[in-house]
Amino acid sequence: MSSTPCLLQRALRRLLCAACLLAAAALAQAQGLPSWNDGAAKQAILRFVADVTTPGSATFVAPAERIAVFDNDGTLWVEQPIYAQFAFALDRVKALAPRHPEWKTTPPFDAILKGDTKAFAAAGEKGLMQVLAATHAGMTTEQFSASVAEWLAKARHPRFGQPYEKLVYQPMLELLAYLRENGFKTFIVSGGGVEFMRVFTEKVYGIPPEQVVGSTGQLAFKMGADGKPVLLKLPKIDLVDDNVGKPVGIQRFIGRRPILAFGNSDGDQQMLEWTAAGAGPRFMGLVHHTDAEREYAYDRSSRVGKLDKALDEARARGWTVVDMKQDWNRVFPADR
Amino acid sequence: MSSTPCLLQRALRRLLCAACLLAAAALAQAQGLPSWNDGAAKQAILRFVADVTTPGSATFVAPAERIAVFDNDGTLWVEQPIYAQFAFALDRVKALAPRHPEWKTTPPFDAILKGDTKAFAAAGEKGLMQVLAATHAGMTTEQFSASVAEWLAKARHPRFGQPYEKLVYQPMLELLAYLRENGFKTFIVSGGGVEFMRVFTEKVYGIPPEQVVGSTGQLAFKMGADGKPVLLKLPKIDLVDDNVGKPVGIQRFIGRRPILAFGNSDGDQQMLEWTAAGAGPRFMGLVHHTDAEREYAYDRSSRVGKLDKALDEARARGWTVVDMKQDWNRVFPADR
Repeated sequence: MSSTPCLLQRALRRLLCAACLLAAAALAQAQGLPSWNDGAAKQAILRFVADVTTPGSATFVAPAERIAVFDNDGTLWVEQPIYAQFAFALDRVKALAPRHPEWKTTPPFDAILKGDTKAFAAAGEKGLMQVLAATHAGMTTEQFSASVAEWLAKARHPRFGQPYEKLVYQPMLELLAYLRENGFKTFIVSGGGVEFMRVFTEKVYGIPPEQVVGSTGQLAFKMGADGKPVLLKLPKIDLVDDNVGKPVGIQRFIGRRPILAFGNSDGDQQMLEWTAAGAGPRFMGLVHHTDAEREYAYDRSSRVGKLDKALDEARARGWTVVDMKQDWNRVFPADR
Repeated sequence: MSSTPCLLQRALRRLLCAACLLAAAALAQAQGLPSWNDGAAKQAILRFVADVTTPGSATFVAPAERIAVFDNDGTLWVEQPIYAQFAFALDRVKALAPRHPEWKTTPPFDAILKGDTKAFAAAGEKGLMQVLAATHAGMTTEQFSASVAEWLAKARHPRFGQPYEKLVYQPMLELLAYLRENGFKTFIVSGGGVEFMRVFTEKVYGIPPEQVVGSTGQLAFKMGADGKPVLLKLPKIDLVDDNVGKPVGIQRFIGRRPILAFGNSDGDQQMLEWTAAGAGPRFMGLVHHTDAEREYAYDRSSRVGKLDKALDEARARGWTVVDMKQDWNRVFPADR
């Protein structure tokens, strides 16, 4: 009892320190989004955030409803020339090959081991599924996470020679932080595997595992011989969180309709449509890759990250299309 | 620029108000868990929370890792004589009957409409699935939520004559709030349908939709004739979030292992085992229904909420078993 006033004093002192930090943060925030050039995209973001956070305004949205969803590949980090998770799977095939001598003569593994990308591509979706089953299943969730972490530490992007975690878009990191400072809860909603992404999303984007929605495979609970249970990854897909699967993933995992959604390809079209269909203020954004020099330029005819129908819909409906070359003065954190 | 000092002053003033509120909250918290009698269960909770929140201690757990999971039926609210969601389904059959004249002669619907619980029980799991498909599927997610909200407003518990939302356990509401005050993120992990629970969990427990893990059915994205998409509930089960399904649901939705788990039946056994198997401090709790007067007394031979193997395991492993009669001085919020 006698210690209460002292505790109160200490709590007050701590809060005053916090006050200074917060005041500094508020100033930093006022300068917000430094890697965004002052154009229509940046203005649309600032206007939307002001609209939904101004108390008493007709467009005010309660913090609990400020759900923002982001695609990952091509929206938050590089997806060319192939998805990082796909590069992981191919590297895993090579790493596991000594334990699988039969792969030398078994399609599509033989093609991967010979570096014959054409023959592998010819194996199509069936071949891809075989590779994913062989490299993503049959181990515990903890073993899988460890294999992803190990790969991320060693793998380098074929063009930039950098770890994938460095090839995230600085303007999008700033946007994620800016939204969180304004009371938004930020989620990833990606076609990527949820167990793959959760290894790095907290460290790289500040998005915790429980706010990552992705494609999921089936899991089996098994009691170990040591009395400790494990979860085994099975070679069966549960949800493909892409295209029409994205609104399904949002409903299943989040259970609220987002008020802001950002993507970059036709795989994000339905997520943006689902976001747009809610009542009240909405923000739908697409990253348009227009910068072959600093990153890549691709859209309608790209094999990876094709942006065609969604681009037409964005233009027809006035969604925000970010022109990477025009709108971003910096692409990667290490850029000047 | 000239307004900055003024903004800073205002921000400081607001933070001082916040400081007063927080100091008051800290005092209230010190009195914590008033509906819990001072016994082994309450002491175990207080000790665990002190262990994981004391900075610098060997047992300290970073706030991001303070994941707490709670079963719903029988752990947070009444599950006798039948699960609320089951009562909802039976009431929906009666409400929808005029649109389905064929039900009068179609099992198991005929049994429900005649109030013949024996004949309905005889229809077993197949009958139950038919009822769930008829009452939970074929509508949009928004229509389903509206039907749940409408039912919750009207339905009364057969014994207590109260809305189900009033039949939540006051000590568990206090525990949820106490954990959140101590930096925990609280989740529901229940066999109940996720779309059913999300209608009331935020209002009743302070748990937002995105922190509710439950059984899920398949959904289909459909573009409406008005250009607005909907999600249709399909009569196919996706995940049964019970027994071995609970650790699977935790991994799929949360992606982190909880450090605290509370249940009340054998359906929670694997969730508690999964929680217990992690490194560092852990808390595993079971609500034991021992109070026939204020609520219900049941365990090993109960048809609903059977607590048998999990009770043996709890006693063998020193998990906390809450004796409702001994440990709680109040059961429902309206009790004195």
